[in-house]
Amino acid sequence: MKCSLVMPGRNCVPRIHYQQQLAQLKDKLLAMAALAQQTMDCAMDGYLKSDMVLLHHVQENEAAINAAERSVDEMAYDLMAMEQPMAIDLRFLLAVIKINGDLERIGDQSVNIAERASELLQMPHAELSVDLHQMGELTEQMIRIALQSLLDGDAAMAKSVLALDNDLDQMNRQVHKAMIMAIEQHPEWTEQALNTIIISRNLERIGDHATNIAEDVIFWVHGADVRHQLSLATD
Amino acid sequence: MKCSLVMPGRNCVPRIHYQQQLAQLKDKLLAMAALAQQTMDCAMDGYLKSDMVLLHHVQENEAAINAAERSVDEMAYDLMAMEQPMAIDLRFLLAVIKINGDLERIGDQSVNIAERASELLQMPHAELSVDLHQMGELTEQMIRIALQSLLDGDAAMAKSVLALDNDLDQMNRQVHKAMIMAIEQHPEWTEQALNTIIISRNLERIGDHATNIAEDVIFWVHGADVRHQLSLATD
Repeated sequence: MKCSLVMPGRNCVPRIHYQQQLAQLKDKLLAMAALAQQTMDCAMDGYLKSDMVLLHHVQENEAAINAAERSVDEMAYDLMAMEQPMAIDLRFLLAVIKINGDLERIGDQSVNIAERASELLQMPHAELSVDLHQMGELTEQMIRIALQSLLDGDAAMAKSVLALDNDLDQMNRQVHKAMIMAIEQHPEWTEQALNTIIISRNLERIGDHATNIAEDVIFWVHGADVRHQLSLATD
Repeated sequence: MKCSLVMPGRNCVPRIHYQQQLAQLKDKLLAMAALAQQTMDCAMDGYLKSDMVLLHHVQENEAAINAAERSVDEMAYDLMAMEQPMAIDLRFLLAVIKINGDLERIGDQSVNIAERASELLQMPHAELSVDLHQMGELTEQMIRIALQSLLDGDAAMAKSVLALDNDLDQMNRQVHKAMIMAIEQHPEWTEQALNTIIISRNLERIGDHATNIAEDVIFWVHGADVRHQLSLATD
């Protein structure tokens, strides 16, 4: 409707087409996000349930994520090159490109988790007093909120992700300490404890990527760059 | 010269100004790169020479890197929004934004190295049979080549970085194995060995960022996306 007031006649058609393409790009990015999210869930489920089938499935997803990443990037680039978008659309396209990169890295980290979990399954069982279930839940929650804020264009929701990242960092430090104690008491469990530390660090990094996504949503919606301004997390 | 043939008269002035701004943006990015590179050198020197002054200096650089990152991003965004660049210039601006992000993360990884090295200095000395000097040298070499390829717009040079990344991954795996052996033989060195593993992983990640930079240079120069196409590394 707005279009027909501003640009009557045949010019209207390409403008509508452009808006449709922006919507399609958002759908493509959300499909990529669903794939990354599913891959992470699968990696953590595989680790927690010692399920080799799930862990194997994670590695199969990697190629699909890489292909999806390229497809999103190409569409965003084509829209930039052909449509010369201004202001809010340009910020949206830049946010899409950055979020896309973070989603691909969430996939990479999930593959790392699956590799470490597979190694753990081949080692003698170690009674490590650590439960990564809660840490995995928090990480998944951060991704879910970041993606919902993208879907709704909700900067306030995006900001709430920034605060959760501190909790995740704290959990990672606790796992690290617990594993050092375990190794000192049971040197024969060194490899198992090291793999656990690395899975914990991978989760912490996935949390960083969720934080990056949230920051990009804020940039898109408000045009403000909130990186390196941690005080905003508690605004 | 080309400008005056295509767009004679007063239109020529803004076009020249635009080209000057693109050149300025490249200089800004190279200054950011020098800062990231210096921070990494400082972290590795501090670690290898057990020099707390150098390690402290790394943390002081972090704020400067963050400020430089925002400044580059803002200039690239403003050029996109105001000048509506086409094709090669658009690819250059997108590459600048991505490279800028990787440089900032090289800074982050360097801060992590400095933190781990500082912790090591406060622990009893452990006779770990590992020398990260060579790994640090290779990482620095990868960054240097990636940045030189950016400076020269040389895609062939950029491709050579992709091959070096495999060597770095191999070195990281060797450090990992050596440290597990050290812990098994000397559980009292667990924390020292873990910090060494993490420094090694930070170097490996810096190598990943150098690889990303090289891929972005290829995208800028050729318009080709070489991510996830490892065969190109040996072309």
